[in-house]
Amino acid sequence: MPFKLTVLGCGSAVPTLKNIPTAQLLNVNERFFLIDCGEGTQVQLKKYKINLQRITHIFISHLHGDHYFGLIGLINSMHLHGRKKELHIYAHINLKKIIDLQLESSNTQLSFPLFFHPISEDKEDILFEDETILVENILLNHSISCSGFLFKEKTKKRKINNNKIIKYNIPHDKLNGIRDGADWMNSTGQIIKNDILTLPNNKPHRYAFCTDTKYNFDLIKKIQDVDLLYHEATFKEDMKKRADETGHSTTTQASEIARNGKVKMLMIGHFSQRYMNLDELLIEAQKGFKNTILAKPGLIVDFKEIVS
Amino acid sequence: MPFKLTVLGCGSAVPTLKNIPTAQLLNVNERFFLIDCGEGTQVQLKKYKINLQRITHIFISHLHGDHYFGLIGLINSMHLHGRKKELHIYAHINLKKIIDLQLESSNTQLSFPLFFHPISEDKEDILFEDETILVENILLNHSISCSGFLFKEKTKKRKINNNKIIKYNIPHDKLNGIRDGADWMNSTGQIIKNDILTLPNNKPHRYAFCTDTKYNFDLIKKIQDVDLLYHEATFKEDMKKRADETGHSTTTQASEIARNGKVKMLMIGHFSQRYMNLDELLIEAQKGFKNTILAKPGLIVDFKEIVS
Repeated sequence: MPFKLTVLGCGSAVPTLKNIPTAQLLNVNERFFLIDCGEGTQVQLKKYKINLQRITHIFISHLHGDHYFGLIGLINSMHLHGRKKELHIYAHINLKKIIDLQLESSNTQLSFPLFFHPISEDKEDILFEDETILVENILLNHSISCSGFLFKEKTKKRKINNNKIIKYNIPHDKLNGIRDGADWMNSTGQIIKNDILTLPNNKPHRYAFCTDTKYNFDLIKKIQDVDLLYHEATFKEDMKKRADETGHSTTTQASEIARNGKVKMLMIGHFSQRYMNLDELLIEAQKGFKNTILAKPGLIVDFKEIVS
Repeated sequence: MPFKLTVLGCGSAVPTLKNIPTAQLLNVNERFFLIDCGEGTQVQLKKYKINLQRITHIFISHLHGDHYFGLIGLINSMHLHGRKKELHIYAHINLKKIIDLQLESSNTQLSFPLFFHPISEDKEDILFEDETILVENILLNHSISCSGFLFKEKTKKRKINNNKIIKYNIPHDKLNGIRDGADWMNSTGQIIKNDILTLPNNKPHRYAFCTDTKYNFDLIKKIQDVDLLYHEATFKEDMKKRADETGHSTTTQASEIARNGKVKMLMIGHFSQRYMNLDELLIEAQKGFKNTILAKPGLIVDFKEIVS
């Protein structure tokens, strides 16, 4: 079951020739979640050969343009390509007004159902849940209302232990029940407990997306033990004052959140355009938390391969 | 005095890896007019090394996304880069609501004065005028209110004929008056008429931008004799019915407008993405009007060099 993140863009403020602002795609068991959607996101999806119609849920952290200016174009393209299936958008309420006004102005009746789910500005909720995953919002501390997102894979069913199935001569049509937790009674009336017939499955994956935010100690308990924390690091540590004034974080602050949260891996992004050499930011963050990587367009993180 | 058009994008509907939707830049005597602003326009400006702060006036033909989805990002970038000088936008009124709502949602107070000039939906007006140029809207025939734009350079002052100035021994401080049309009286009381002292200047340039529109015979008299007509040719002639249904034109229809309008040169664009080989569209248009060129990103048309 894939659990993979693709970085589409990780710049801040404005698109450039080499990078677009924030956009990421999370593939959970072939369900595609888009997280933020800066201008140019749909072209990045083309570049990385991802069919935009596969996206079913879009999460927008906040209404600064570098996190959503590509969304109306993406919706429009889904429509022009004849999409029929539902699209769900999770964002602060004004985005609904913006989308509605733009659709009305172009006299567009979308070819597909669009469901808008407003994100609370002051409460942490479950935004989405299905049989495999749960998505919660995380209140961040930025200059306008801003949410991070926590993607929590649900506990997986135990795996069949084939050796035991053979040993106890269990018929094939009973396997689903055993996967669901059933014990087995053999012909002599002996009960074989489920934990003998099955093996523990992989630990569920967890991904925390946290941008834009100033340094926020409260974040630590929320992102505790995730496999991957994406945390903005707009500035180097020498610009801590500027970071605080603008509602952003430094490399060192991002690494502190990761270290105290005991996450497996930290990915930093949302770099200020003043930095030509991003390795300087990486080195600084790695001083505080060794297992740090730089976000870059096209980077794919396979959660199965994350080691702490 | 430059009068040059740069094509930034000429696709239709959605941006691709090779082209963005409509956007053009017209340089009239170092005054920069942006015409339409599809998603990705600001990156194209970077690509062609055009400083976005030089743009002072933006004309948006209509509120289909492929003609304006890049605008809010461009405005935002001008703001983030600390622009101080005025920006004037000419568009249908809903665009003002869209921009205002987006600025309000991000709690942005622009660093520069933004003036919005609504375009009439049913009347042809002068939109802009200064000492060198006049811009008028042209009512087009599309599925929603849509305006073309006619850029008309004003008649230029006659040029000083240096040989005559020497012959009649005219002092330097009188030359401005002669440029403005004054005659000259020499010491014997003889009147030397202005048309002896001056030479005719170049003919004023004219550019007509017409997209999106279905075939519209009325257009011919409005674009009569322009140097360059940009006319959409979304489809080849075999898709005439589809063009008509969707409010678009074919190659042959664009060439008919150009031929009957006796323009010097026709540029076609807004090509449907179904066409892989655009030369097929060019060949078809050239059958109706020989001096036709294809729009393409990066193409610069210098009006001084246009020959019919």
